[in-house]
Amino acid sequence: MSTTAPLRRLNIDNINPRVKEAKYAVRGELAVRSEEYREQLTKDSHGLPFDEVISANIGNPQQLDQKPITFFRQVLSLLENPALLEKEDVLVNQLGYKTDVLERAKWLLKTVGSVGAYSASPGATGIRESIARFLEQRDGHSAEAKDIYLSAGASSGVSTLLHIICATPKTGVLVPIPQYPLYTACLSVLDAQCVPYYLDESKNWGTDLEAIKGAYKEAVAAGTDVRAIVIINPGNPTGASLSAEDVKAVIDFAAEKKLVIMADEVYQTNVFKGKFHSFKGVLREMQKADPKKYNHVELASLHSVSKGIIGECGHRGGYFELVGIDPEVQEQIYKFVSISLCAPVIGQCLVELMINPPKEGEPSYELYKQEYDGIFSGLEKRAFALYEAFKDMEGVECGEPQGSMYLFPTITLSPKAIEAAKKEGRSPDEFYAFRLLDATGICVVAGSGFGQKAGSLHFRTTFLAPGTEWVGRIAKFHKELMDEFR
Amino acid sequence: MSTTAPLRRLNIDNINPRVKEAKYAVRGELAVRSEEYREQLTKDSHGLPFDEVISANIGNPQQLDQKPITFFRQVLSLLENPALLEKEDVLVNQLGYKTDVLERAKWLLKTVGSVGAYSASPGATGIRESIARFLEQRDGHSAEAKDIYLSAGASSGVSTLLHIICATPKTGVLVPIPQYPLYTACLSVLDAQCVPYYLDESKNWGTDLEAIKGAYKEAVAAGTDVRAIVIINPGNPTGASLSAEDVKAVIDFAAEKKLVIMADEVYQTNVFKGKFHSFKGVLREMQKADPKKYNHVELASLHSVSKGIIGECGHRGGYFELVGIDPEVQEQIYKFVSISLCAPVIGQCLVELMINPPKEGEPSYELYKQEYDGIFSGLEKRAFALYEAFKDMEGVECGEPQGSMYLFPTITLSPKAIEAAKKEGRSPDEFYAFRLLDATGICVVAGSGFGQKAGSLHFRTTFLAPGTEWVGRIAKFHKELMDEFR
Repeated sequence: MSTTAPLRRLNIDNINPRVKEAKYAVRGELAVRSEEYREQLTKDSHGLPFDEVISANIGNPQQLDQKPITFFRQVLSLLENPALLEKEDVLVNQLGYKTDVLERAKWLLKTVGSVGAYSASPGATGIRESIARFLEQRDGHSAEAKDIYLSAGASSGVSTLLHIICATPKTGVLVPIPQYPLYTACLSVLDAQCVPYYLDESKNWGTDLEAIKGAYKEAVAAGTDVRAIVIINPGNPTGASLSAEDVKAVIDFAAEKKLVIMADEVYQTNVFKGKFHSFKGVLREMQKADPKKYNHVELASLHSVSKGIIGECGHRGGYFELVGIDPEVQEQIYKFVSISLCAPVIGQCLVELMINPPKEGEPSYELYKQEYDGIFSGLEKRAFALYEAFKDMEGVECGEPQGSMYLFPTITLSPKAIEAAKKEGRSPDEFYAFRLLDATGICVVAGSGFGQKAGSLHFRTTFLAPGTEWVGRIAKFHKELMDEFR
Repeated sequence: MSTTAPLRRLNIDNINPRVKEAKYAVRGELAVRSEEYREQLTKDSHGLPFDEVISANIGNPQQLDQKPITFFRQVLSLLENPALLEKEDVLVNQLGYKTDVLERAKWLLKTVGSVGAYSASPGATGIRESIARFLEQRDGHSAEAKDIYLSAGASSGVSTLLHIICATPKTGVLVPIPQYPLYTACLSVLDAQCVPYYLDESKNWGTDLEAIKGAYKEAVAAGTDVRAIVIINPGNPTGASLSAEDVKAVIDFAAEKKLVIMADEVYQTNVFKGKFHSFKGVLREMQKADPKKYNHVELASLHSVSKGIIGECGHRGGYFELVGIDPEVQEQIYKFVSISLCAPVIGQCLVELMINPPKEGEPSYELYKQEYDGIFSGLEKRAFALYEAFKDMEGVECGEPQGSMYLFPTITLSPKAIEAAKKEGRSPDEFYAFRLLDATGICVVAGSGFGQKAGSLHFRTTFLAPGTEWVGRIAKFHKELMDEFR
């Protein structure tokens, strides 16, 4: 308790209780301790049993030495300093900027005016049009600029959509468990109900329609006004990648129950197995086959520059596309986003670059492809290295990597270890994650931060950190912990 | 009414009523029409009685041809493409980058790692430390990095603070009228009470302590839990600049009633008359004189790269400093901002450049000073040109320009004009603003968008548009309108 509460207006007991309730473990106590260790390591005699902190808790590729894509950053440098465009010969002959870099920068500058100016509230018109063209190509179905809203990363898009959907404390939103905790945190802040549905670990964390139906039925019976369903595909924290059939089944259920689908598709390019099936693309096919049944399905699909292969988190760029949303509701979304003026304009430009990269035959294509493929195969390689290590670890189970940036293995701890956790006042998976950090400097997130079936234990790790040596450190720690509490 | 509501889950009657209630006129119907005109003007025979749209409705300097500061944008170009730093000789000898540009870019890159990586939730540590040093210099009192939170412009800072403060529908926040409508919009969304207090137009829109006391007393009597007071200094939309005595009086009242002070100080460099008195600086002096009385005053002061002289709106950079806030409450603020991960990192870097520009004797200083002073004097010149024009207009009253980017003149319309407005279903000031746009292409915001005393009429105009020719267009329109409805 604060000792000064009586003197101040605000104290822990009287501030917004909905903010207090919100949980966001990805940047919680464990992450704070890892930052303290990082600070400690800069000192000469740090006294720690490791020499570096590995932040496997956050999907933050460029913190972990992933290099940005040259084409993107060259264009952005010109947007920040358009005066450079007056020296084309220097750019081309001495700095290696290709002509398509210059052309794209000029086009973007024409579109946004200055990256220092507010754009229109939902984003610069030319960029929205470019995204529409990308979606048409991706899905083979029409898309319109007016339905596209630029956002500060996907997070702010999720917040916007939930602000519109959540009308009363009875409003419920179906959220997968385990989930990226943004969803439950936003629902807490908005004083709405999270209606959890469990993903099926035995089917590599795919959606389980029976579980969704059960969760829906139970919530409705309890008086909850279930309005929407969140799907994260590829999955976070699970790494699952849904089949077209899974996507269809969700749409079918949403159509039947009139649920707004929130499709978090920020990992759409991070698929190692099979292919990505966009909700929009699958929905349009279903609408063609049975317009009456599916034409009024409401869908919002989110994407971001933070994830994918390019990992430009710090630029806070993203967008969502609305499908089938009532025009009057869309007007309210427009007004709501206008209150925060507009998404960062340089981030908007980066969205445009991401969805419209150099094409084959264009001057920057070769380098772009080389860099892009290099990042992709690095991710895949590390994902499988981790997976192989997990397979060999006692009491650890993990499905084959499919997509996104994460693995979410099950761990089994002995009763003695669980007892030790209890003594420290932590859940067993948190206890495990703290022990891992203290012993190795590797920071992961305990499964309880995402939700998990009662009695089961997990942790989420990214596979972003360079090299695979650190994977061995996890295996060594695990063996020692198992031995200690055998 | 939507005709398809029964088929869809979301319709205008069942979405979040708090979002529906929120009003934000700065980007409302008038602004939308102005964008339509802008589009129409690109056609050969546009049929409009003007050849350009002048957006005097939004404080968006770089949309209106204000040039960015060279030093800032040179540094940002290097942050976006650090590979350029490998060609120092080209940068220096052929592109005119000075050595302090290179040094600053290297320092910022060391601090943030990559602008494509998430920073720590409240911002990059080195940037927070730099802001603390700036505040120490500005106020002559200590400041600490731990109390500084980077935000996506000041708007997201305001939203964060109100999210913490607003606990129940009874929570009230004192808001000046007229006000920048972000405050009322956020309070609507958060289902809290706006407690309006009127600024004193007869004293050039200064604060009127009696009005504040009256509003407070009335609200408390009605059962409102008044917790905070918003001050915008220099004023938006009023352009007022507060004296040290006015600031003191507000702090004194806040101390007595235990109100959190939210000091919106985004126009702190835009002062044409007298000088800017920061709430933090004045508070610290009062604390020295009477610690017992003032040591527990809670203050949040906001700043932004969007306004000031530099006008870098599109970069969405800003910060707030907390003073006297309970540490446990501050932990909740930390958690809340972590849910949206971090403010745009390139915007954070721009904040650092803004508060730590080149110093006298440094290579980039001369050009920086020349550009900065040029923008300042341009703003001042246009402010006074508008002021002089308003003085000559029938039934228009306007105080002498003091600060910010706005003038907020009173207009007096004839009963016949008010009748005509009624017929169009508009308030008289909206009617006036639409007529002005239709006749001249100049877009302002009607006073009702900010709040005004019943029966009084105003509009807000920025003084950002280049040149002063357009000022004459307003005068001509005004005369014709007065004649039409005499």
